[in-house]
Amino acid sequence: MQRTVLKFGGTSVGDLDRIAHVADLVSWRASQGEKLAVIVSAMAGETNKLVGFARGAAGDNLSGPSFDDEYDVVVSSGEQVTSGLLALALRKRGLKARSWLGWQLAMKTSSAHGKARIMGFENSGLLDAVDGGEIAVIAGFQGVTDEGRVSTLGRGGSDTSAVAVAAALGAESCDIYTDVDGVYTTDPRIVPQARRLDKISYEEMLEMASLGAKVLQTRSVELAMNHQVRVRVLSSFAQPGEDNPGTYVCSEDEIVEKQIVNGVTYSRDEAKVTLYGVEDKPGVSARIFSMLADAGVNVDMIVQANARGPERANMVFTCTSADSENAEKILLESKADIGFESLSVSRDVAKVSVIGVGMKSHTGVAGTMFDALYRKGINIDVISTSEIKISVLIDAAYTELAVRALHTAFGLDAT
Amino acid sequence: MQRTVLKFGGTSVGDLDRIAHVADLVSWRASQGEKLAVIVSAMAGETNKLVGFARGAAGDNLSGPSFDDEYDVVVSSGEQVTSGLLALALRKRGLKARSWLGWQLAMKTSSAHGKARIMGFENSGLLDAVDGGEIAVIAGFQGVTDEGRVSTLGRGGSDTSAVAVAAALGAESCDIYTDVDGVYTTDPRIVPQARRLDKISYEEMLEMASLGAKVLQTRSVELAMNHQVRVRVLSSFAQPGEDNPGTYVCSEDEIVEKQIVNGVTYSRDEAKVTLYGVEDKPGVSARIFSMLADAGVNVDMIVQANARGPERANMVFTCTSADSENAEKILLESKADIGFESLSVSRDVAKVSVIGVGMKSHTGVAGTMFDALYRKGINIDVISTSEIKISVLIDAAYTELAVRALHTAFGLDAT
Repeated sequence: MQRTVLKFGGTSVGDLDRIAHVADLVSWRASQGEKLAVIVSAMAGETNKLVGFARGAAGDNLSGPSFDDEYDVVVSSGEQVTSGLLALALRKRGLKARSWLGWQLAMKTSSAHGKARIMGFENSGLLDAVDGGEIAVIAGFQGVTDEGRVSTLGRGGSDTSAVAVAAALGAESCDIYTDVDGVYTTDPRIVPQARRLDKISYEEMLEMASLGAKVLQTRSVELAMNHQVRVRVLSSFAQPGEDNPGTYVCSEDEIVEKQIVNGVTYSRDEAKVTLYGVEDKPGVSARIFSMLADAGVNVDMIVQANARGPERANMVFTCTSADSENAEKILLESKADIGFESLSVSRDVAKVSVIGVGMKSHTGVAGTMFDALYRKGINIDVISTSEIKISVLIDAAYTELAVRALHTAFGLDAT
Repeated sequence: MQRTVLKFGGTSVGDLDRIAHVADLVSWRASQGEKLAVIVSAMAGETNKLVGFARGAAGDNLSGPSFDDEYDVVVSSGEQVTSGLLALALRKRGLKARSWLGWQLAMKTSSAHGKARIMGFENSGLLDAVDGGEIAVIAGFQGVTDEGRVSTLGRGGSDTSAVAVAAALGAESCDIYTDVDGVYTTDPRIVPQARRLDKISYEEMLEMASLGAKVLQTRSVELAMNHQVRVRVLSSFAQPGEDNPGTYVCSEDEIVEKQIVNGVTYSRDEAKVTLYGVEDKPGVSARIFSMLADAGVNVDMIVQANARGPERANMVFTCTSADSENAEKILLESKADIGFESLSVSRDVAKVSVIGVGMKSHTGVAGTMFDALYRKGINIDVISTSEIKISVLIDAAYTELAVRALHTAFGLDAT
């Protein structure tokens, strides 16, 4: 029995017309003999409205145990509405369908309200219903804690719900319908020659997701990788039956023709913090970065340059723009304690990365990358690498130029 | 331990400012040492919006098993939002509070989706929480069926939720905060001398509710009577601590000074159907009214007048305006079968009633009523009576005049 999980995000179910279109797509999938579970997000804008209500009611008290659990009660109502509406729209088309809420599944999560993690779910009723030909319309983003309270999975959590359901159902594919028709080699708004990828490995997708290609929630890709769920990203704007292959996110083994580089990504939400004249004694780096970690600052790249002779070093790190104010404040408060001379923060920086599983077995990627940037006169500020990724920090003004140069240099331009 | 249940309707929680005011009222009640459970409706307008969504998604299929269960999923989300928001607003004021949804209570209901009846609820956790000083903020209007699906209690159902919770908690009082400051002897918009009643019996309130004084849902009064829950209707616009006695709806025994007549009510949503020349043979009335009942027409008053000699009679009955079209259609379709000569429907009629438990032990009420109407030149068309009520059908143009005349005649005008 071929079971498939479909997921539709907020834009795809943004109003009654869009929900009707989704019902047509689902109806067509059902007509192909697939047994379906459909995960839905809240109607676009609804979650923001509900978040505004919760913040308005709570006043200054906007996080922690006295906020998060009730925040979840409020915001999870958006997905509840959509699941009921889509079930009705499917029945209108003569299909058997019913809605399932987090507590009905029961989609068990951790008690970390607002950013709960799925622990698994129990309900054999869902499997029976789906196998019996009833389309299960599941409210995404929400779960239930061991204490029987409503939880939510954090922004984009419906992707993760979909993968969890696909894993539990042993689904053939977890099809994430969205407002793009697949995963691209880079942002087509910057590079018109960007190509839709037929397949991309979990590892690459993880790097893409965390580097700013906002197609899938990072956590959903991790979960898919752990459970070997084949995820497909495809367009919710296509008509029923229309050619809509999308991009499969799957195991590396499944990808026969491996490209050395599969994608070029960028992120402008970066800040570079430089500490000048840091005392070069043991333990000082550990002090700085554990201090930042305790304050919730997510540090990305780190470079230490011994620019000033043996006793004093300059230290550079990057974090998100949002975190950088906090980082600056914390470091200045501990200036004497840490022992550095001065500090500067630059927010006019961008991170550009090339990603590809092929790097594991090919050398020369870094050379090609740096050369391509050099030829355009782009200065590289900081470099960081992983097994399948090379990232560089550059002046933000050169972002588009760098992305285009790299896309061409690695042969990604569509012909 | 004095436990009290408070209930706030849609207007009282219509926006964040109103919710803040409700939180202030609840906070003040808590400061008086009361252990509180608070039932909330959806924010005003929200339920209508959700109903519109559900109807829009379902198309032509607007009732029955393929609509009602998912309708409940959609519309119940409104109360969920309010319960979370009020819990947050109470915490902001330093109080311990949490929301409770229908399935969490678990407020068990029948499976009659959209108009489910409460069967009772099980959760001892609620009692422990309330006694422990945590304010329970309960989403009204919603429950859960034995099949684990969401149910709703029908419009105004939050009143019934409140009474059910009050019964389960053995609450001292079930205080229904609303946009009026109590139950009045009649509609103050028609009779400025109308007085707020200190107390009214369940039986009288039932007649008031079913006759068009839309203060409390009828079902909630029945439930209160069955469980001897003291209900109080009071103003949600009062400031915390302000004098706000409201009206107690309670057992007749508790009311020492019984008035003969406690209220004058009216309803303009009436239609009079007259069948002329009905064959006067056994079983014909039964045929007519079971036919109407099968079609869902709720018949109120019935009069048979032998105006045409022994073989032919005229038959008059009343129903709501909305039902009258259906009634007319059904009767005309069966005209030959039933055997009547012609039919007329008048929608320019109103029902005016006087209500009072004192009638049980006093005679002369009907005489006083008819005389008062006669003196104003108001013609009585149909009369019906119960133990504590006399209703007359009159020309709708005389509604206000009749209400004023009766209010004065029974000594209800405030001095």
